[in-house]
Amino acid sequence: MSTLSGKEFATTIREDVTERAAKLAVDGTSARLAVVTATADEAAAWYVRSIAKAAEKVGITCDVVDLGAAATGAELAEALTALSADDAVHGVILQTPLPDGLSVADLASNIVARKDVDGSNPASLGRLAAGLTAFAPATAAAVVALLEHHEVELAGKHVVVVGRSTVVGKPVAHLLLDRDATVTVCHSKTADLAAVTTTGDVVVAAVGVPGLIKAEHVREGATVVDVGTNATADGGLVGDVDAAVAEKAALTPVPGGVGPVTTALLLRNTVEAAEAATQRVAVPGRRRQPSWRR
Amino acid sequence: MSTLSGKEFATTIREDVTERAAKLAVDGTSARLAVVTATADEAAAWYVRSIAKAAEKVGITCDVVDLGAAATGAELAEALTALSADDAVHGVILQTPLPDGLSVADLASNIVARKDVDGSNPASLGRLAAGLTAFAPATAAAVVALLEHHEVELAGKHVVVVGRSTVVGKPVAHLLLDRDATVTVCHSKTADLAAVTTTGDVVVAAVGVPGLIKAEHVREGATVVDVGTNATADGGLVGDVDAAVAEKAALTPVPGGVGPVTTALLLRNTVEAAEAATQRVAVPGRRRQPSWRR
Repeated sequence: MSTLSGKEFATTIREDVTERAAKLAVDGTSARLAVVTATADEAAAWYVRSIAKAAEKVGITCDVVDLGAAATGAELAEALTALSADDAVHGVILQTPLPDGLSVADLASNIVARKDVDGSNPASLGRLAAGLTAFAPATAAAVVALLEHHEVELAGKHVVVVGRSTVVGKPVAHLLLDRDATVTVCHSKTADLAAVTTTGDVVVAAVGVPGLIKAEHVREGATVVDVGTNATADGGLVGDVDAAVAEKAALTPVPGGVGPVTTALLLRNTVEAAEAATQRVAVPGRRRQPSWRR
Repeated sequence: MSTLSGKEFATTIREDVTERAAKLAVDGTSARLAVVTATADEAAAWYVRSIAKAAEKVGITCDVVDLGAAATGAELAEALTALSADDAVHGVILQTPLPDGLSVADLASNIVARKDVDGSNPASLGRLAAGLTAFAPATAAAVVALLEHHEVELAGKHVVVVGRSTVVGKPVAHLLLDRDATVTVCHSKTADLAAVTTTGDVVVAAVGVPGLIKAEHVREGATVVDVGTNATADGGLVGDVDAAVAEKAALTPVPGGVGPVTTALLLRNTVEAAEAATQRVAVPGRRRQPSWRR
């Protein structure tokens, strides 16, 4: 079956972002993203570097604010609040993992909605579910954008989401409902996973277990989106979906599927936030509704 | 099959609320709920009167703040903000319908979370989805509480929710996921409704279409929760579920099922909010986490 690559699509998005960032620069605004980290985790460090590099390429300045693996909740909250108040910063991301005992959702409540470019503030998720403008978590948005890019029909179709995380499973369910899909959310406590996933026209795997979704979990001709990014012993990356699935279903690859689209959408959200900030400054009193994606 | 009544359960909850409100009164606090309305709708007026009467019976003061059917968004926002800031008020509800063009979710953003006893603020829904403390919409909470009261197993079971509203369908899906159910959300665009609902161990009907769910939509031995409250021509009330369903499934009645539990939970949320407010005042500097229900 076909491979639903995200590379070309991500390139198209980044080209658009590059143009928009350049236009902002001409008008005197340097789009700026701040990534707050508090971990010694190697994979996180690698991911943050890849975001910083991608941002630089499209003309977005990326500040990595590293508070160290011993950072307290109060220090993180203070940093996020300060960045939320800093007019020079347009997007704020809180990188996981966090020090033990700290909750992403709780801390991300300190990111002001208009700069919450990775949709980590629970208020953003609530606004999304309520049909109000908000930034969606970039990974969840990437799943839907990639499906739409490859013209996979969603309205009236049955989409089975495997995984109920606040970062992917739950927001992607809301985005899919918005597009008129019938949505099922499965998870580790689902009694018979294959019995549910084989009823899906589309299956979204977002659990973080290498190869969990096998050929027997998917029906012939289905579309499968692999959100998993699991590190292998040799430094590679594998998804949540077994390679054999590709023989009966259209599948997004790992790497090269959801991943590059996620990064591209993070950058697009940042440039959008910068545009909205510029409009707020340019026309005081006639505050325009920012064109946040839903 | 059996009838899953909500009346006795609602009575038990109201007895608990009565005790707690009396205890607060002894300590000098009168638990107080404010209901903001802006409609000439008869059904809404009837519902608000029934809440006020129920509140009075358990010892909660209920203020109806009627801004009239011509109220503007700005007036409503101002009223909700003022009530949020008023220390004498512990719970704030925004009654629907609203004047044309106004959004409940948008306006309810003005209800501070700790007084949002009907979980209307999108931030409450987001916190709920993220696993943080928040008041759930009372109807959604009533569905789950009623199922648990009747000892219907949810963990590992498949629950099909029909309806994707911000007030019931979406929050009930989150509450059910929290209880380890596999959850499917269907709606008007679902291609073959019966094909999906018959796979449910539990079916929750929350669409507002009289008799939409018929015997053919439900499998033998399933449990069906009827959230519908549709007015009949003769002044009665019918649910979304056809009476014939009771022959093959355990069913919550309308009236007398989810309805009374919803009202009882609204009152319980209000007394909880009042208790939390008292604790905040009593021990300044040692602000305790309010025991909001999830």
